Amino acid sequence: MSNQHDAPRRLRLGMVGGGQGAFIGGVHRIAARLDDHYELVAGAFASDPERSRAAAAELHVDDDRAYPDYQTMVEAERKRSDAIDVVAIVTPNHVHFDVARTFLEAGFHVICDKPMTITLEEAETLAELVERTGLFFGLTHNYSGYSLVRQARDMVANGELGELRVVQVEYPQDWLSTRLEDSGVKQAEWRTDPKRSGPAGCLGDIGTHAYHLARYVTGLELESLAADMHTFVEGRALDDNVNMLLRFKGGARGMLWSSQVAPGNENGLQLRVYGSKGGLEWRQETPNQLVHSPQGEPPRILTRNGPGLGEAAMAAARIPPGHPEGYLEAFAQLYSDFALQIHAHQRGERADALALQTPGVADGVDGLTFITRALASSAAGGQWVDM
Amino acid sequence: MSNQHDAPRRLRLGMVGGGQGAFIGGVHRIAARLDDHYELVAGAFASDPERSRAAAAELHVDDDRAYPDYQTMVEAERKRSDAIDVVAIVTPNHVHFDVARTFLEAGFHVICDKPMTITLEEAETLAELVERTGLFFGLTHNYSGYSLVRQARDMVANGELGELRVVQVEYPQDWLSTRLEDSGVKQAEWRTDPKRSGPAGCLGDIGTHAYHLARYVTGLELESLAADMHTFVEGRALDDNVNMLLRFKGGARGMLWSSQVAPGNENGLQLRVYGSKGGLEWRQETPNQLVHSPQGEPPRILTRNGPGLGEAAMAAARIPPGHPEGYLEAFAQLYSDFALQIHAHQRGERADALALQTPGVADGVDGLTFITRALASSAAGGQWVDM
Amino acid sequence: MSNQHDAPRRLRLGMVGGGQGAFIGGVHRIAARLDDHYELVAGAFASDPERSRAAAAELHVDDDRAYPDYQTMVEAERKRSDAIDVVAIVTPNHVHFDVARTFLEAGFHVICDKPMTITLEEAETLAELVERTGLFFGLTHNYSGYSLVRQARDMVANGELGELRVVQVEYPQDWLSTRLEDSGVKQAEWRTDPKRSGPAGCLGDIGTHAYHLARYVTGLELESLAADMHTFVEGRALDDNVNMLLRFKGGARGMLWSSQVAPGNENGLQLRVYGSKGGLEWRQETPNQLVHSPQGEPPRILTRNGPGLGEAAMAAARIPPGHPEGYLEAFAQLYSDFALQIHAHQRGERADALALQTPGVADGVDGLTFITRALASSAAGGQWVDM
Amino acid sequence: MSNQHDAPRRLRLGMVGGGQGAFIGGVHRIAARLDDHYELVAGAFASDPERSRAAAAELHVDDDRAYPDYQTMVEAERKRSDAIDVVAIVTPNHVHFDVARTFLEAGFHVICDKPMTITLEEAETLAELVERTGLFFGLTHNYSGYSLVRQARDMVANGELGELRVVQVEYPQDWLSTRLEDSGVKQAEWRTDPKRSGPAGCLGDIGTHAYHLARYVTGLELESLAADMHTFVEGRALDDNVNMLLRFKGGARGMLWSSQVAPGNENGLQLRVYGSKGGLEWRQETPNQLVHSPQGEPPRILTRNGPGLGEAAMAAARIPPGHPEGYLEAFAQLYSDFALQIHAHQRGERADALALQTPGVADGVDGLTFITRALASSAAGGQWVDM
Repeated sequence: MSNQHDAPRRLRLGMVGGGQGAFIGGVHRIAARLDDHYELVAGAFASDPERSRAAAAELHVDDDRAYPDYQTMVEAERKRSDAIDVVAIVTPNHVHFDVARTFLEAGFHVICDKPMTITLEEAETLAELVERTGLFFGLTHNYSGYSLVRQARDMVANGELGELRVVQVEYPQDWLSTRLEDSGVKQAEWRTDPKRSGPAGCLGDIGTHAYHLARYVTGLELESLAADMHTFVEGRALDDNVNMLLRFKGGARGMLWSSQVAPGNENGLQLRVYGSKGGLEWRQETPNQLVHSPQGEPPRILTRNGPGLGEAAMAAARIPPGHPEGYLEAFAQLYSDFALQIHAHQRGERADALALQTPGVADGVDGLTFITRALASSAAGGQWVDM
Repeated sequence: MSNQHDAPRRLRLGMVGGGQGAFIGGVHRIAARLDDHYELVAGAFASDPERSRAAAAELHVDDDRAYPDYQTMVEAERKRSDAIDVVAIVTPNHVHFDVARTFLEAGFHVICDKPMTITLEEAETLAELVERTGLFFGLTHNYSGYSLVRQARDMVANGELGELRVVQVEYPQDWLSTRLEDSGVKQAEWRTDPKRSGPAGCLGDIGTHAYHLARYVTGLELESLAADMHTFVEGRALDDNVNMLLRFKGGARGMLWSSQVAPGNENGLQLRVYGSKGGLEWRQETPNQLVHSPQGEPPRILTRNGPGLGEAAMAAARIPPGHPEGYLEAFAQLYSDFALQIHAHQRGERADALALQTPGVADGVDGLTFITRALASSAAGGQWVDM
Repeated sequence: MSNQHDAPRRLRLGMVGGGQGAFIGGVHRIAARLDDHYELVAGAFASDPERSRAAAAELHVDDDRAYPDYQTMVEAERKRSDAIDVVAIVTPNHVHFDVARTFLEAGFHVICDKPMTITLEEAETLAELVERTGLFFGLTHNYSGYSLVRQARDMVANGELGELRVVQVEYPQDWLSTRLEDSGVKQAEWRTDPKRSGPAGCLGDIGTHAYHLARYVTGLELESLAADMHTFVEGRALDDNVNMLLRFKGGARGMLWSSQVAPGNENGLQLRVYGSKGGLEWRQETPNQLVHSPQGEPPRILTRNGPGLGEAAMAAARIPPGHPEGYLEAFAQLYSDFALQIHAHQRGERADALALQTPGVADGVDGLTFITRALASSAAGGQWVDM
Repeated sequence: MSNQHDAPRRLRLGMVGGGQGAFIGGVHRIAARLDDHYELVAGAFASDPERSRAAAAELHVDDDRAYPDYQTMVEAERKRSDAIDVVAIVTPNHVHFDVARTFLEAGFHVICDKPMTITLEEAETLAELVERTGLFFGLTHNYSGYSLVRQARDMVANGELGELRVVQVEYPQDWLSTRLEDSGVKQAEWRTDPKRSGPAGCLGDIGTHAYHLARYVTGLELESLAADMHTFVEGRALDDNVNMLLRFKGGARGMLWSSQVAPGNENGLQLRVYGSKGGLEWRQETPNQLVHSPQGEPPRILTRNGPGLGEAAMAAARIPPGHPEGYLEAFAQLYSDFALQIHAHQRGERADALALQTPGVADGVDGLTFITRALASSAAGGQWVDM
């Protein structure tokens, strides 16, 4: 078990969003519990006070810390001696910014779902705030928590692929192939609603994950892009398919595809990276293997916690090879990494000193820049635009 | 999220075993936490009192409930008003029996790792005790917690495969291909030591899992078997490879292979079931898909929480299709199912009234019968023996 | 066996190119033999007369029909009563045009490797010549000979995918990741030499295959494209990686990637097509299965000659399901289809009356148009250009 | 192209069996043509003279060499100056022996389908005859023609797996899951008829292939076996499922499963071999890859004609890696190897001097011994019997 060590007290976690019918709130709670570094003690779980209290009752949260809204929550918590250490923001996208700003200004660490904000300006405002306050800010680009994603990142960084040439990333889904948003499915409703999702649909929901994964593993910076965004399902306001060409600084080229109208694809996130010395391929749906192809040699199947892995990958695995870990474990890995950084901060160390390189506010700004530029390119008919 | 509902209080969990260097104890703890139905409050984590206390400190267990041994623990806990509700037994095999008996006799519910005991007599003793006390007894044949294993079981029970003909089950590993037990690896040491593992090595460690999975999914009872057990690694006292022919009541035939000396296999548990109307194939290392081949039609890939599943499978999944769940989630599923039964018991209902059909003491007796008969067959040169 | 029927005489086949050290000539010969519709009787196998005669001796071709060059061959053959029925052109690209024109003008049917010519003008000249003479012209876009590619084409045409939305095609290889052209490998030499390959490297060699496959299966016409072509290996004159965005008439969008510098990819041709009712995925390296995902249902694995296939697919398979057919069989399928059309022509029927829809001169023109427009787009920095 | 070299004349091939409705005859003919070492010139294609002549007409065989029966054929051919060099026997099993004996006694080389004969006595008679005459006898255990099967054999022989421990081989099919023999399917009729198939059904049809493959790759000799044969489909006279335990000389253990009632399996022949230093896994349905797992290292995917292969594998491949070869190419490989040996014999060299180690009469005797012992074991209730 990789995460067993001298245990500081569990961090007190608050949550904004994540009431009944929500999906990602429950994921954050499991992720927080899994490695036992947090206890959920407070929340504004829903915009309706009664529903917030009902959620709290289900979640073993004391009734007096089931808040009707996040403003009340921040005011009440700042006065408590046992105040929360950190708040997790798991609302629809359009609410992230106000909540994050409010908690940061009140001195709380923040864990925020992605995309960080709706606009680039909001993202930059948060970045300044984080810089100014020195507080911890974690962004749950959760795929970066997979053990073999970290292995891939290490291998690239160590030069095992040589000079990078081609980066192909894709994230196809099929669940929005029909007008599911008309069927009362809450997840579909807000994700296809510009008021709650912002101006990017599929691009913001999963395209940003694909983009982040490519950046996280390769370390490359994007120089320019040409985006062809489209809405296939009639009557839908936001894009449901994104095709994109990428040019990275230093010369590597790539493509990015994200789609929510590709039948047969559930969460087909896939990254393929090719350099002068070899290639790497990883698929999210079978995350416990990573195929490494040294140029001119037979491909090798690296397995989570199996032979031939580096330290970063080993540190992000819980159980022996062959017993699969999945999405929740990867999400939990981020929460555990965040906890280490929050504890460090509480000991008076600067949180970023740990160099865990988990996704943070800078990734949020980068993601919004990516969204903004892709929208600009697509609006111009798919022309190339600089980042 | 399938496991969100009106929440009764968390069950107070005690643990025997699972100190530093242990593997399965940590798994049980994550499994207990994952769906938030338990809190770990007490334990006799190690045979050495100091190591037990050190483990407790790491695990957020109060020092006064870190017991030096299980006898002390049972005595102390039975006197508390906030006593544990249930104890998890995660020691090496040879200790299971005494601990389970002691806690049952003191009126505690029990969750026990497998194989349940060393001898069939011990297993039958526990079964009588459970029958007499009416207490809950859960056996962690954890692979039965996978969502698609439950789907497979349902499909067989509903007659979708027709009359069963052939059952092929295997569980190959490679980690004991060399004399790892000489290298100070604790997991290897006790598993190859007859004093702690009992008379069955590979057979008891993973062969029983394969046997249980076949029984769980097919519902078939074994009639007779012919076992060819062998030890390939020189100097090892217990079997490290088991080949077996199976005849089931009603006429189905099968084979079982378990091995710990098959390089390239991590936890290659695989079940294939064929009937007059179709076939099913499931592999533990890619547990989020189940291939169903109706005779004369193209095979269909069923995915966890995807289209075409029954209720049992849906109830044992947490997150949408395409985001993989793994070993820990399957293990957690058993813990959650156990919690439902313990709560029912505490409300005065008979635990088995829920018909969740999770593995229990009867499976433990069946497993020990299987081990005993396989050993007899192999000792007789691989002759057929009746169950 | 699908190809057994009343046998007309074997067609007499001549060949230009395909001497020692060539690759594709041998493939054409096996393809011609496999279903027994041809016998090789004449050839100008190499530019050097001695090497042409040596090749003939190896190939059981009579010495007096081992020609020193194609001009001599055409003159000699047109005078024979047992003249060849058809010539196969398997030279490097730059020679295709002159040979094809010469044989067509002399009244011979032609089978030509792809890309058909170096320039679009040449392609159009051949198209006019074929139109004028009424002769048969087959272009070996061989992947269209795979049984399950034909199944995919049928399913799209029958509306099983609904309205097409997204088409993703790729053809990555790795064999030119290093400067193999400096190592005396003949295949690498001419393919990276603009004089012999024309202005397109990877694009012409395999990008055109990917493009043809997408067109063949979907029936969609390309409206516009944006191409980002690049040469990664230093000192190479032609592109070795192509990333491309595609817009089809009618609204479907797509991407095309072809690469010869992607380590771990041998011939990773893959086509994925998604429509409003379902999706299809096919990979050339495992060509005996086609995954069909009806929206909202479990994916189905269609197998070559297995259950659920249409007539076109059945007609293009030789052996029962589960015994894999491969590249040579797909290539042979084109040769067999070509034979049917040549026999029809010889009976006085118009060759195209058979509607076998095998690749022909129109596909050659289309391919050169594609190459020409892609080069224009890339030269303009990756801008969108109309077809 | 591996098979291009100084070409001796094509061997003149005769065939017994293989008329309309037959399956394996057509396969033999394609196999003989593929590498261009044979021409089919004579045959007794069917028991009915008219049908034999009709088949000849389809196959470009001269009418005067379309014989009404094999006796007439052998008499006529032995008198011709252009007599056949070799006869291929592709009849149902029960005819093999008489035809083979007759042609051998008349001095012809023989290529025979498997199982070689119905009884062990017949097999031994043929072996003596081959020994006495010195003629070439090839047995088409065609899976031994796959390039990567030869690679596996080489790796075992070179000690790359260390000392062999476990051999798991299986060959499941599904096509006889119902009473197909009642539907007028000729292939099903004779295979389930003891008069034409002999006393072994599934065992003789595909179990012998599995056995041969295991022996071919490992080089191990079988010491004893315990067979549990069963007939699941009501009214069928022969076994349709075989489960078997194997003990090899030297201590390795194994299992063999062959079935024709396992829905979802087309030709699922699979071999897995494990030794003290590593493991190998190969599947017939994806024959272009072989997974090699050195103990303690990541598994490596060897591909046909890809990096890291030995000479034997390279010699048995035609086209570059990534373009799949299949069943017909493997079958053709045997025919090409046979041709080399027949040519050697005709030059006065002893055929076996080439040490190509293709399957021959000794393998036929071994196969019949295996069948005989398995039948004996099963008849005795699945008891162990020595080979």
